Amino acid sequence: MKLNERGLLVVLSGPSGVGKGTVRKALFDMYGSDFTYSVSMTTRDMRPGEVEGKDYYFVSKETFEKKIAEGGFLEYNFFCGHYYGTPMEKVEEALLTGKELILEIEVNGCRQVKEKMLDAVTIFIVPPTKEILYERLRRRGTESQEEIEERINKAKAEFGLAYQYDYIVVNDTVANAADRIRAIIRAEHARTKRSIYKYYEMVGDGSEQ
Amino acid sequence: MKLNERGLLVVLSGPSGVGKGTVRKALFDMYGSDFTYSVSMTTRDMRPGEVEGKDYYFVSKETFEKKIAEGGFLEYNFFCGHYYGTPMEKVEEALLTGKELILEIEVNGCRQVKEKMLDAVTIFIVPPTKEILYERLRRRGTESQEEIEERINKAKAEFGLAYQYDYIVVNDTVANAADRIRAIIRAEHARTKRSIYKYYEMVGDGSEQ
Repeated sequence: MKLNERGLLVVLSGPSGVGKGTVRKALFDMYGSDFTYSVSMTTRDMRPGEVEGKDYYFVSKETFEKKIAEGGFLEYNFFCGHYYGTPMEKVEEALLTGKELILEIEVNGCRQVKEKMLDAVTIFIVPPTKEILYERLRRRGTESQEEIEERINKAKAEFGLAYQYDYIVVNDTVANAADRIRAIIRAEHARTKRSIYKYYEMVGDGSEQ
Repeated sequence: MKLNERGLLVVLSGPSGVGKGTVRKALFDMYGSDFTYSVSMTTRDMRPGEVEGKDYYFVSKETFEKKIAEGGFLEYNFFCGHYYGTPMEKVEEALLTGKELILEIEVNGCRQVKEKMLDAVTIFIVPPTKEILYERLRRRGTESQEEIEERINKAKAEFGLAYQYDYIVVNDTVANAADRIRAIIRAEHARTKRSIYKYYEMVGDGSEQ
């Protein structure tokens, strides 16, 4: 019996290359999971194997900028010449279903989300050491040397933004990281600020004492 | 890999008769648990089956009041003619071991604990409905009718203090309640305020950017 029955908006972030997508997939594959994922919109090119509307909504720069002007993003970000953002209408649609909505966003999108959604649970995923992350970025085959260096510099800067998040989760193994995130979601449902309203409905407000 | 390796001080409370002790025992029996329990001190009589130093430290009123005067309690409480309290030195001993320390206290002890231990995680255990609790209190065989009525009145007043706690956990089944508490403990270790120091040790403070 959960006292808070509303879905949570859960923000997953962390430095480039930390494995956010892999952890998110593991989370969705766990037994008993009932999550919705918000697909981001981007102006970057589709990579091999990516699917429109599943990995991203791929749109033109003009379409993206028009949407920014209309206030159509929960958060957005410009990096390496491309935009990435979370369309607002998709978030609202998903939260109405009562399921947890998992957002995977760029590190500096956290503040934008917290401003618009005070209730969001924000989780910063980190590697066990920073060297592991840099090594992983260097081995990435799909990008030019220049892009790799830019990503490493970006990751260095991003490490410092962990303090903006509610939780820090180490991605030592994907299963451990996903399991920790599940515990966080479970715990957040029990937080007094989320459950007190239903609790008072249940026991009364004490005024009959 | 946990970023916070210090033990947590976890306070379990809830209205009289909600099953705090049973939930606490289930929590300790879970696979992988590594908890310490702080035994309270009381001036009430030992009930059949209770063991000195395991269920409570049973002391005289004079001993208890001397200890109050010395500031020797993390929290204490007077109810139905008896004192109940958490000896400070036992808490300090236990936290030094690095294990989670579970305290089971009276509802109105929460504020006293929070004042002395800002880091404490406080959990309020509630019944699925208040009627279930009142019925359970009425069936208690070891107390007089007058004591039962006093406990019911106390429970009514206690329901209103849930807002002082960090979490509200429904004791629908003992296993569910214990499992939620374990998730809360796991999540609390990942909270940024507890893990940021070790995190910065690990990745540096970003000053090398």
